[in-house]
Formats: sequence, structure tokens, C-alpha cells
Amino acid sequence: MMDDVLFRELERPKLNRPIVVEGLPGVGNVGKLAAEHLVDELKAVKFAEIYSRHFPPQVLINDDGVIRLVRNELYYHKAKGKEAADLVLLVGDYQGLSPEGQYELSWSVLEALERHRPRRLYTLGGWGIGKMIETPRVLGAATNAKLVAELKKVGVTFSKGEPGGGIVGASGLLLGLGALRGYEGACLMGETSGYFVDPKSAEAVLQVLAKALKLKLDFSALHEKAQQIEQITSKLKDAEVPPEPKRENLDYFA
Amino acid sequence: MMDDVLFRELERPKLNRPIVVEGLPGVGNVGKLAAEHLVDELKAVKFAEIYSRHFPPQVLINDDGVIRLVRNELYYHKAKGKEAADLVLLVGDYQGLSPEGQYELSWSVLEALERHRPRRLYTLGGWGIGKMIETPRVLGAATNAKLVAELKKVGVTFSKGEPGGGIVGASGLLLGLGALRGYEGACLMGETSGYFVDPKSAEAVLQVLAKALKLKLDFSALHEKAQQIEQITSKLKDAEVPPEPKRENLDYFA
Amino acid sequence: MMDDVLFRELERPKLNRPIVVEGLPGVGNVGKLAAEHLVDELKAVKFAEIYSRHFPPQVLINDDGVIRLVRNELYYHKAKGKEAADLVLLVGDYQGLSPEGQYELSWSVLEALERHRPRRLYTLGGWGIGKMIETPRVLGAATNAKLVAELKKVGVTFSKGEPGGGIVGASGLLLGLGALRGYEGACLMGETSGYFVDPKSAEAVLQVLAKALKLKLDFSALHEKAQQIEQITSKLKDAEVPPEPKRENLDYFA
Amino acid sequence: MMDDVLFRELERPKLNRPIVVEGLPGVGNVGKLAAEHLVDELKAVKFAEIYSRHFPPQVLINDDGVIRLVRNELYYHKAKGKEAADLVLLVGDYQGLSPEGQYELSWSVLEALERHRPRRLYTLGGWGIGKMIETPRVLGAATNAKLVAELKKVGVTFSKGEPGGGIVGASGLLLGLGALRGYEGACLMGETSGYFVDPKSAEAVLQVLAKALKLKLDFSALHEKAQQIEQITSKLKDAEVPPEPKRENLDYFA
Repeated sequence: MMDDVLFRELERPKLNRPIVVEGLPGVGNVGKLAAEHLVDELKAVKFAEIYSRHFPPQVLINDDGVIRLVRNELYYHKAKGKEAADLVLLVGDYQGLSPEGQYELSWSVLEALERHRPRRLYTLGGWGIGKMIETPRVLGAATNAKLVAELKKVGVTFSKGEPGGGIVGASGLLLGLGALRGYEGACLMGETSGYFVDPKSAEAVLQVLAKALKLKLDFSALHEKAQQIEQITSKLKDAEVPPEPKRENLDYFA
Repeated sequence: MMDDVLFRELERPKLNRPIVVEGLPGVGNVGKLAAEHLVDELKAVKFAEIYSRHFPPQVLINDDGVIRLVRNELYYHKAKGKEAADLVLLVGDYQGLSPEGQYELSWSVLEALERHRPRRLYTLGGWGIGKMIETPRVLGAATNAKLVAELKKVGVTFSKGEPGGGIVGASGLLLGLGALRGYEGACLMGETSGYFVDPKSAEAVLQVLAKALKLKLDFSALHEKAQQIEQITSKLKDAEVPPEPKRENLDYFA
Repeated sequence: MMDDVLFRELERPKLNRPIVVEGLPGVGNVGKLAAEHLVDELKAVKFAEIYSRHFPPQVLINDDGVIRLVRNELYYHKAKGKEAADLVLLVGDYQGLSPEGQYELSWSVLEALERHRPRRLYTLGGWGIGKMIETPRVLGAATNAKLVAELKKVGVTFSKGEPGGGIVGASGLLLGLGALRGYEGACLMGETSGYFVDPKSAEAVLQVLAKALKLKLDFSALHEKAQQIEQITSKLKDAEVPPEPKRENLDYFA
Repeated sequence: MMDDVLFRELERPKLNRPIVVEGLPGVGNVGKLAAEHLVDELKAVKFAEIYSRHFPPQVLINDDGVIRLVRNELYYHKAKGKEAADLVLLVGDYQGLSPEGQYELSWSVLEALERHRPRRLYTLGGWGIGKMIETPRVLGAATNAKLVAELKKVGVTFSKGEPGGGIVGASGLLLGLGALRGYEGACLMGETSGYFVDPKSAEAVLQVLAKALKLKLDFSALHEKAQQIEQITSKLKDAEVPPEPKRENLDYFA
């Protein structure tokens, strides 16, 4: 029988009590965009692939016609210079499909990372507000009051009743189950319309995270994505608005 | 692999064959309101938290930005004065999501309580009747005829065909599975519209339960909640009803 | 952890290679009505109750206010006089809710009955044809051609393409899984509209089964139920049909 | 408890590192038609039946009234003459119902075939394009670039972004999980409208596969099926299109 969750270990890095950062698909793909940007910018090294029957029964095809099973991935980055800590980054194609699968996957990841004795977890996500927003705030929630206070200092907004329904999925469970296992952690949620993938919200989240982790990040790749999205969404807006009648110069009639 | 149901034991109280009272979310949240009121009024002590992958994959955020995983909780109260018995109270955020999860959770709670050799189970709930009601009756169902007779004496209504579809969820399963394990028990269901959370129905249930358990309870907290709800629902009613024309005193025209 | 399927054994009867007859809820409740009629008429003795987390999480309440968990039940009847064989009867409140639950329940029943080395399985059901029918045929399907031939002789209709979609649920699985375990068996399906519970179709099925099992059965209880249903359905028909205008005697106008 | 997946082994053939070909129900039933045609034409020998609680709880009835449980089946064919390799063919009534079931079934098949050390996997399917097509292309995806190049030579189209959503179900999972276990493989997808079973698309797939496997195949049985389908679909078209007015010869008016 296939294991519920199957780890394919590529390397066994030695890490010094790393900070774990999760960014999986979700509202506006904010968390996924942010964590993948981190992987790219830090040139983080993949050390494990996670397969599970709680993911969709699906393979993806790359541009050359080569397929791979849907999965999550673990990367690491050793702290350089003044950076706060070694990092483990959790990214991937999907979250678990069922509630039970969500629990099982988050639990398994925590178990697999136990040997590294993580010092903290950050989970990244989007907070859908149902309307376009110019300057997204980064909302937060944490496993203890001390961490709440600490994050306020780097610009995270803690706002009573936001988000109202709690945090659903891996970003919530990793913290909730993590707390049961003795880890502290926080969720950083970028405001987003929820209608499009939102690189701008991802950047807002990363700006805050970079401050907390003392990372220096280049955001130009996210800026490019943000521009692409804006071009698409502005076209959509144009398409929706009925074209205004052409205004010829009628001044001489006036 | 994560256990299906995970007990976090905070204390191991010595209880003298306690009576177990369950009140989890359901129709009108009658059971939950009633059991939580009991916890508050008796200043009952939490001795275990129950986590499970049969709950939603979700954390809740309190007003200070601190999160916790959704869960059920067990409280105890040692009998004082003339009270009938030590109590164990089961409250929580959710019931199991799937039928299998419902069975697993109820079974696990019964297993965990086995060491205390409970003398009886009371499960509390609402019975939705689809219309507003002034004086809710408390309907009952029990695992044996003797208990039916006993509960009639404290004001529980046993009415053929009410509720028609049986009892679904934890309030049913704890009794049904409990009976298989040798426990007697009863379900107390307060009539409720089913449209709103219903503190009045919760009080009706508790009035009956207090008589059965020889508890003295203060209901002012429930009264307050009831008033809040009534204010909201009466506003809703007003909003639906077109405003009547203002009636100035026109008597002198008559 | 609760067993997937939980047998509560009340008695361990000595049976001589019994024939197993299943009748659980389904189309027109034909199988359930037929098997329960058999239990009543033969005064069969209950020897096991089957509980499972694959059933709904529900207790039923009887007219006295006493509850019991939903379940299936096994009865036995020792052959008398010229009757063909000892019988085991499987009846109950529900079938499994999920496909996996259906498999698990049928498999568990077959395992539990293995010690009695059943000589044959009959599963009873309805075959919904979407219109009212005066004289329902009994359609059949069996695990081998010899049994098909045998059942044709007692009046079972084997008709190419009927039922088209195969047999779904316990009536199919007990035969299908039974065949894998070496048992032969047949499904007897009474034609029924599928709109109402159908005691007439249940009688048709039992008439055939009685012939096969050399049972003498009194059908008056089913006749009564059939009359009750007919009263209800004829009222419904009346309600649907607009009343014809009263035809006074207008002949003298002609 | 019933095994999740139950293999009924009929024979244990000695195979020389076979190539595995899968064709189960899916879009246009292209894969199923193709693989079953292969079974028929090669007179392949069944050596195992696969039953599972991840299939529907259903038995099928053949024209003689004899039933069998829904299943998948494994056939083998020993290479003759210039044929490329021994073959194992996987065909069946259904795919797994749930995502978890899909994973479990594909994993179990791979485990069961491990003893034969397959040299390659081909999974066959349809690629629904939502419109009727005269000459279906065969799209491909493979587990490595070398195999992509090899398949291009026998006429498989590898087209960026086709199919866009990856490959879902057994055709994807066998390759994805197979790759994790060290097998290479490819999926061959015949273009099809997706509205009807499509023997023409199945033939296109088989033409390519036959070239890759150096098989000589007779396609007349598929041609017949294709004609039957075309008769049905052309009737449907006629029924939809309003009849054109009869055009009598009006030339002499001109």
C-alpha cells in the first residue's frame, strides 16, 4: 500500500535551527508567488520532494513534453552575512484536496522537519477582500502574544476580526499543529482582491518577511509579473466598459 | 502519521463516576450555548483538548491576533453541596465533518472517558421547527424506558414522532455508541426556529438539566445574549416589514 | 480506534449450511420490505447486530422515546418440514454511505458468515422502471448459468439488458464479493415504479423466493401495506387530476 | 477487513521485461477502445483480475443473466517475430472513484508488475478538444526527453501547452508514480471531440503504438465500430439540423 505521504529525499542538509517558510497555492496565489520568489532569489537548494495521494491524481507536462507528478518541495538556504537564520522553504503545485489530507500533509511535513529543530514557522498567504487594492496591507496572526508584538514592529497589521473566519489550509494547519508540537510561528497575509494572481501582494508580504529575516531581496522579477497581470486586468476592465463614443472635435459648433 | 483523534491531556482529575454533558455546535447552537454556559457558571476546569483531522483544517484568531487550532474540549466540575454528581463537560468549535469522522470522534471521547466510569450521558441540542417560538419545549429521547420516565418528571416532553428523523451527529452518536459500551443517557433538545442562535432555547434545556442534576444556575448571561439576539432579529423583522405610515394623532379630525 | 464494522453477537446459532437472504433499503424499498416480511412470518431469531461508521451518524427514536443507533441485523431460521435450508436474513436501516463503505460492509458480512459455510446467497431488490405497474415481473441475475436456468423454472425473468446498469449496492456486492469467496448466488429484483415503497413488488419477489426455498408464507401483512400505499397514491392521483366538471343530466337539451 | 486492492491471480506468466500498455475508461473511451482492441487482436491471455473498494459498488450483468463484480484486468502477450517486447495490457470497467483510490490503484498495479521488471509503460487516452475532428493527431508526453525524441519519430505530436491541464487519472499516475519507481514511460493521447466513444481516435493511437512496438495489427474491428458510431452521430446531426427545402431542378427558370 502506498504511504499517505511519500518523501523523496534528495539531500540531507545540516541546518542550524532553521526558520521554515511556507507558500502554497491559495487566495491570489500570494503565498506561492512569495515563497517561489524567495526560492529563486536565494538560489535555495531543493532537498526533498513530497508526493501524496491527498494531491490530485495528475501529472504536469513541461514545455518539452516531459511530465512529472504533482508534488510539494522543500528547499534550504544557509544564512549568509547578517541574515537571521538558515531557511527551509515549502512550495508546491497543490494543497491537500480533503480536510483529512490537509491535516496529514501538514503533520508529515512537521515530522520530516523535526530533525532540524525549526526555531520558527512563517506561513504566507493572501487575504481576499473582494475588491482591487492599491497598497495591500500585510495582516498577521501568530501563535503567541510576544510574536505578535515583534511582528507589529516590522509592519505587520494585527486587526481585530481580520481575517474573520480564521486561516484555512496549510498556512493555518502548519501553525496550529506546529504549536501542538512546540513550535512558534506566524501567518503573514497580503491583502488581495482574490480575482487574480497577485504579485504586488506577494511583494508586500515579502517586504515584511525580509525585514523580519534580515534578508536583502531583489523584487524586479515580481515587478515584471505584476506588470503583466496589470496589463491583462486593465484589458479586462476595458473590455467590460462600453467604448465611449468617439469625440470628434466639435468645438466649432459650440 | 497523525492520529485520527489527538488528546492533549492537561490534568488527570479524580472524578467519582461523573455525569457527562455534551453541547457542540448544531441547530440554533442550542447545545453549544447551554454547555458553554454551564462551563462558565460552574467555573469548570479544562482537563483535555481534542484535535482531529476530522475537524476543518483551520485555525481561529482571537482578538489579540493569537491563533489556535480548532478543537473540542473537556472540562470537569466536582459536585458541591446537594449536586447530583461530578460532571464532565464536552464543548468545542466543530463537530466532525464526515460521517466516519463523527463516529470516530464520539468513539474516541467515550474511550477517553472510560477510566472515569461515567454514570450517565446527557447530550444537548436544538430541535429546529422552522418558525419562531415563544416558549420552547424541551424534547427528549433516552437509551431506556426508565430514564424516559425519570426525565418526564423534570419537565422533558417525550412526543411520538418528534423529532422524526432521529438525532444526527454527536448528540445522537454519543448516546448510541455509549449504549453499546454500557452507558445510559438522554438527549435534551430545545425547540428553536433554527434561523438564529437561540439562547432562550438553551436556557429551557438548562432549566431541565439543572433540575435533573440538582444544580443551581444563574441565567443572567444567557438572558443578555437572548436580548442581543432579539434586538437583531426584531431589526430584521422591521427591515422586512414595510414601515407603516406614521400615525399622528388625528383624533380631532374624526 | 473504532472498528470499521462492529458486530454485536447476541447468539451463536448452529446452522446447517444456510441460505443467506439480504433485503436492505433501496429502490421502492422492495428488498427491505420482502426480507422484513420474511423475518416476521418465519419468526426468525436475531443473532447479531452490525454497527459501522459507514452508516449515517444517527440514532432512531421509537414511539416510547427510546433510541437506538442505526444498524443492520442478522436473523436465522432453522428449516422446518420440507423447507429447503436453514436461513440467515440480513436486514437493516441503511446501506453504507460511501462506495468504500459499501465494499467494507458486504465484505464484513461475508466474513462473519463464513463459519456457517452458506450454500447460496439471495439478494432482494427493486428494479425501478419509472411508471406504475400492475403485475410486476421479478427480474434475475445470478453468479452462474446453472443458477440462471434453475431460477427461470420458478418464474424469474432473465431479460437481456435488464437491468442495464448492473446492480448497485449491497445486493450487487454481496454476490460479486461472494463469488470471489466461492459462494453462488442470485439477485431477485421486483419491478417497481420507484416512486413509492412497493409492497406489491416485494410480494412478487417473495412469491418467487418462497418457491425456490419451499417456504409457505402468509402475505396478508404485505397486502395490508399494499392497500395503505394504494390509498395514499390514489389520493395523490386525485389531487393531481383537475376535477371534471359535474355532468348534470343534460339529455333533454339534446 | 477487505484489502484496498485485491489481486486475483489466474496465472503467473514468465515475461521478459515486458512493456506495459494501459487503456482504461476516459475521454472518448479512446484508451479503453485501443487497449481492448490490442487484447483482442493479439489474443492476449488474462493472468490477473483486480478488484477494489475504490471502484463503484456494482456488478455487471452479461446477456445470459450472469453477473460479475466490476474490475480491472491484466493480460499478457509474448513477443512474436520482430515484435519489440513482451506485453502486459491493463484494461477494465472503471478507474478509481476518488483521488486517493486512483493513487492506490496505480501504485498497486505497479507493485504487482514489479516482479516482471517492466522496461517501459505506455498509457493510452483521449484528448478532448470539444469539436468533431476528421484526422485526429496523437499527442504525447513522456517521462524523459530521450523518449520524447524517440516518439516524435513514430509520429507522435509534442505540442507546447497541449494538453494544458496535464494528464489526470490512471494514464497520468501510472507514469508519474512509475517514474518514482524507476520506470520510463509515455502517454499517447488521441484527439477526440469528447462527445462520443471514438474508435477512430483509438485507431490513430494504435497506429502510432504499433509502429513503436513493431506490431502488425488488423484494424477492421475498429473500423466497424467507427462506422456504427458515425451512423449514430450523423443521425443526431440530421435531427438537429432543420431539413433544407427540397431543391427541385429549377435550372430552366434561370
